[in-house]
Amino acid sequence: MFLYEKKIELDLVELNVRDGEQFKKPFKNMNPFGCIPFLKLEDDTIISETVSICRYLEDLFPEPYLFGKSAKEKALIDMWNRRLELDGFLPLLHSIRNSSPRFTGRVIPGTRSELPQLSSMAERGIEMFEVLLNRISPQLETNEYIAGADFSIADITGCYMMDLSELVDLDIENKYPNIFAWHDRIRKRKSHKNV
Amino acid sequence: MFLYEKKIELDLVELNVRDGEQFKKPFKNMNPFGCIPFLKLEDDTIISETVSICRYLEDLFPEPYLFGKSAKEKALIDMWNRRLELDGFLPLLHSIRNSSPRFTGRVIPGTRSELPQLSSMAERGIEMFEVLLNRISPQLETNEYIAGADFSIADITGCYMMDLSELVDLDIENKYPNIFAWHDRIRKRKSHKNV
Repeated sequence: MFLYEKKIELDLVELNVRDGEQFKKPFKNMNPFGCIPFLKLEDDTIISETVSICRYLEDLFPEPYLFGKSAKEKALIDMWNRRLELDGFLPLLHSIRNSSPRFTGRVIPGTRSELPQLSSMAERGIEMFEVLLNRISPQLETNEYIAGADFSIADITGCYMMDLSELVDLDIENKYPNIFAWHDRIRKRKSHKNV
Repeated sequence: MFLYEKKIELDLVELNVRDGEQFKKPFKNMNPFGCIPFLKLEDDTIISETVSICRYLEDLFPEPYLFGKSAKEKALIDMWNRRLELDGFLPLLHSIRNSSPRFTGRVIPGTRSELPQLSSMAERGIEMFEVLLNRISPQLETNEYIAGADFSIADITGCYMMDLSELVDLDIENKYPNIFAWHDRIRKRKSHKNV
């Protein structure tokens, strides 16, 4: 979605992560953390972590600014992106990894292990996610985008967080109408529909 | 530690968070997320999230560069900072919040609630932290600092993560000697001792 918004084209290699292709050479050596995506630069440096890759691309191709332009804008967008990711997206992700059958044996991203799925972890993740929803709802009452008037990386993070939340029955539309409307605005962008 | 490394002086206001001063006016209005620290700019804008505050200060006072100088350095430091924070610091933090008696009724940062501490969450947090330790150990075999040759924000994140790990009995010194030596190098810096 970030690439599409910035009109950046990269050579893409798709890995079959369900079959564990990221654990095989040469990919395991490229990202020992066993996760995708990662970006290979021309000097063979590997950058992993989605947000770090996006930051790098924004440095090279600034416009449109999705991490903000001024120091203040950048700080506020980073703050909102962190709030969504650390307090919402991650608890939700761990909740789903600890409950959905397709994550059996894969509860920790980038691993295959015998660690069991924990229903208490799944429930607590939802409770943490609901705390986050209650915190962001007032912000979305008066702002079109989560960090204010402009669309940013934080809205992209938020959109995928809300997409993920559809795996859980939370009745967002009725309980959090501001958040539902925001999610709907973001997911209707061409960049989301075309991913 | 970041302020001390950068030789930045700010007017500080200390809040008694154990007594919940951050939930009272005017602080609750300043950061509705109920966490510290947060930074108040001269135009009354509030920036919360420690790393976002540090990023903002680095924009204003670049040297010494703790987030990197070139686009590539910045991306790699950001990648390592995220790996430590998301895969290590956060699981460890949630583990301790779900086990230490002093966090009863405060399992989610910035909240007071009836949510019980979950021993399974405490144990899984340690398991996740150990996955991270096994992943970073090779990097610290050949590098003085986590992102390479230079000290960065990722080492500060790592230092506080390792400080926190001392609340748990993991025998880091014998099981992860590279990590122990790295932690020792960082915590001996004047900036850490003087915090």
